[in-house]
Amino acid sequence: MESTKRAGPLTGLRVLEVGHFIAAPFGTRLLGDLGADVIKVEPPAGDPVRQWGTHIDGNSPWWSQHGRNKRCITLNLKHPKAKEIVLGLAAKSDAVVENFRPGQLARLGLGPDVLREARADLVIAHVSGYGQDGPYRDKAAFGVIGESVGGLRHLSDHAPGMSDLPPVRVGVSIGDSIAGLYAAFGVMAVLWQRDRQGGDARARSLDVALSESVLSMMEGMLPEYGVMGDIKQPTGSRIATAAPTSGYLAKDGKWVLIAGNSDPLFARLSKAMGQPDLPQDARFRDNRSRVANVEDLDAIIGDWTRQHDADALLAILADADIPSSLVYTAEDIAADPQYRHRGMVQEVEDPLFGQVLQAGIVPGVPEDPGRVRWPGPKIGAHNEEVLGELLGMTAADVQGLRDQEVI
Amino acid sequence: MESTKRAGPLTGLRVLEVGHFIAAPFGTRLLGDLGADVIKVEPPAGDPVRQWGTHIDGNSPWWSQHGRNKRCITLNLKHPKAKEIVLGLAAKSDAVVENFRPGQLARLGLGPDVLREARADLVIAHVSGYGQDGPYRDKAAFGVIGESVGGLRHLSDHAPGMSDLPPVRVGVSIGDSIAGLYAAFGVMAVLWQRDRQGGDARARSLDVALSESVLSMMEGMLPEYGVMGDIKQPTGSRIATAAPTSGYLAKDGKWVLIAGNSDPLFARLSKAMGQPDLPQDARFRDNRSRVANVEDLDAIIGDWTRQHDADALLAILADADIPSSLVYTAEDIAADPQYRHRGMVQEVEDPLFGQVLQAGIVPGVPEDPGRVRWPGPKIGAHNEEVLGELLGMTAADVQGLRDQEVI
Repeated sequence: MESTKRAGPLTGLRVLEVGHFIAAPFGTRLLGDLGADVIKVEPPAGDPVRQWGTHIDGNSPWWSQHGRNKRCITLNLKHPKAKEIVLGLAAKSDAVVENFRPGQLARLGLGPDVLREARADLVIAHVSGYGQDGPYRDKAAFGVIGESVGGLRHLSDHAPGMSDLPPVRVGVSIGDSIAGLYAAFGVMAVLWQRDRQGGDARARSLDVALSESVLSMMEGMLPEYGVMGDIKQPTGSRIATAAPTSGYLAKDGKWVLIAGNSDPLFARLSKAMGQPDLPQDARFRDNRSRVANVEDLDAIIGDWTRQHDADALLAILADADIPSSLVYTAEDIAADPQYRHRGMVQEVEDPLFGQVLQAGIVPGVPEDPGRVRWPGPKIGAHNEEVLGELLGMTAADVQGLRDQEVI
Repeated sequence: MESTKRAGPLTGLRVLEVGHFIAAPFGTRLLGDLGADVIKVEPPAGDPVRQWGTHIDGNSPWWSQHGRNKRCITLNLKHPKAKEIVLGLAAKSDAVVENFRPGQLARLGLGPDVLREARADLVIAHVSGYGQDGPYRDKAAFGVIGESVGGLRHLSDHAPGMSDLPPVRVGVSIGDSIAGLYAAFGVMAVLWQRDRQGGDARARSLDVALSESVLSMMEGMLPEYGVMGDIKQPTGSRIATAAPTSGYLAKDGKWVLIAGNSDPLFARLSKAMGQPDLPQDARFRDNRSRVANVEDLDAIIGDWTRQHDADALLAILADADIPSSLVYTAEDIAADPQYRHRGMVQEVEDPLFGQVLQAGIVPGVPEDPGRVRWPGPKIGAHNEEVLGELLGMTAADVQGLRDQEVI
């Protein structure tokens, strides 16, 4: 069977996902991408995330990627018979990953104590907005709130006074995905401890909060506030302590990042711009002066970049060995030779769409690479297969569950 | 000894970091936070990241967090004697994590083949801008370039036509941190496979690229482009398919996120705003209409929010059960009771600063929590301890290395 063939270092690991939307399902997708057998439990109407993003005939291309490598089964968790099925599957799984509101699974009769009666050394990973305890435990939270409370949103803005518009979202629910990645990391950390030679075979939990996952990425923001009282402020496309480094508009409307902020880099950049005397200008003679006069400096660089298309600019900058890059769109990513070379942009066969362009597997494991075994399945696509293989049910048993609206 | 006491699920794991700046060191910090013994190899002048961020007397509070839980040793990798020390340490380590330019370690005589002569089942994790092969392998890349090539920067912007300013950086090198987190996940995935009962004890590598780590978080961007040809565009603080959901300015100059985009939520929000008839306005009667007239709608909501301070607004919104949040700054985070309750914001004793406010440990492992054992050490703080404990060197041996400028 396809699902049990070797497909990365996590072949042989089984993970039960009782999750929805992005965070937990993204974490289990990463485990599945490295070869784990991920069984996704969905309500009979399906995970609402299947309806997110743009659609063709009710099917979203995003789901083709978001649901890939998983075996999808349906369960009405409010039906009494669903509980015993979950417990039967948990008994054959290494880990359960869930992202309901804290306490919700326990209210369904599927709290950690019950799950561990089914399997004593089960790892249970909880993903939530604010964590499993504390005064905000029961508050609703999703990606944008986690990003906001974690400090990312405040910094995703132009410098104070530069714009009347609000700070921006980064365009994706990155707080969810970062939390999912932390959950995947945590699951493997405690499984390593549990399963290794001489390991202790004890059960362990993970308690991953969106807000905390985001906050953990905020570098010196908190230490600098604590020690100096500095409240870190956004700096737009620039960096507070070095200039020039920013995005500049090219003639064809594309943005090009240029980082020419050391003295030698700035000298080369000035020459490439045909203004070799700029470093002698008192406003720009060293990094401190350039930072103080960054508006003037960026205006001069912007006047130059607007005379050339992005491709021409990037060629000039590469010749001058100035760190620089196009600000990539989906179109640029799809055409990029590096991504294609490494399989990071790949066409995946999907019965619904013919082919779907998908992001590849991260991290790469050269000796035993993960792969896209199949695209996001239909709702309940693996009901018979999973319930048969793991719980010994016959097709008639499964039909019975369907008739009773358990699945 | 402090470093070998139980301090999380990775107690007993040893990781050698031959890295600098953010990506690899952030990944190893996560391993150390969960209890691993991380040995950081630095040049005698120290990792340049120690000089990043704001300083007091040449010391950065960020380093107190970024370097925590590591044992720091110095090595001049160009000295012939350094090689044998690295190999001696590799022999006693489970994994090596590095983020030099691809091929750089091999040029120093420390390629994977040499390292594996020291220890056959060594895991080697490479973190780089574009990956270890392909046409861009040798290109310089750092956080902002990875974020740009990964597609995040393009989306971190206002909607086309809304602003002349460039797309913004999120204020931190999030591409580096995401890559570091992927490396930590990958290390644990292959170690699980290597070390578990019945594992195969084979050596494995990780090949983590910044650009790819960012791209993997871009949700439906690539599938939607491939299937529909849609090039995903930024939407500022809003979401393209639902309204109202954005950041709104309060009277005291703070931003408040409000997500009132279902019909019942919008009805409650309208009532809370004292304009209960808004849902009857033809422009706002359903989500589709609200999205089409979002400029009008956000102007009305913004007129309301500017009459109240953020705290008052949040109280009104909480009463009406509307998902909402303050856009937190460092100050808000430091004062937040949830973060304090969960130890996610904590004071760490640091000999240089007295106390340093640091972000806590993610993920939480309730049964066996990681902890901050010590803050970022001085350069070479553990030279005697590590070289003595792992390589059997005496104080005189270490002094000899110092005299020869090996360390």
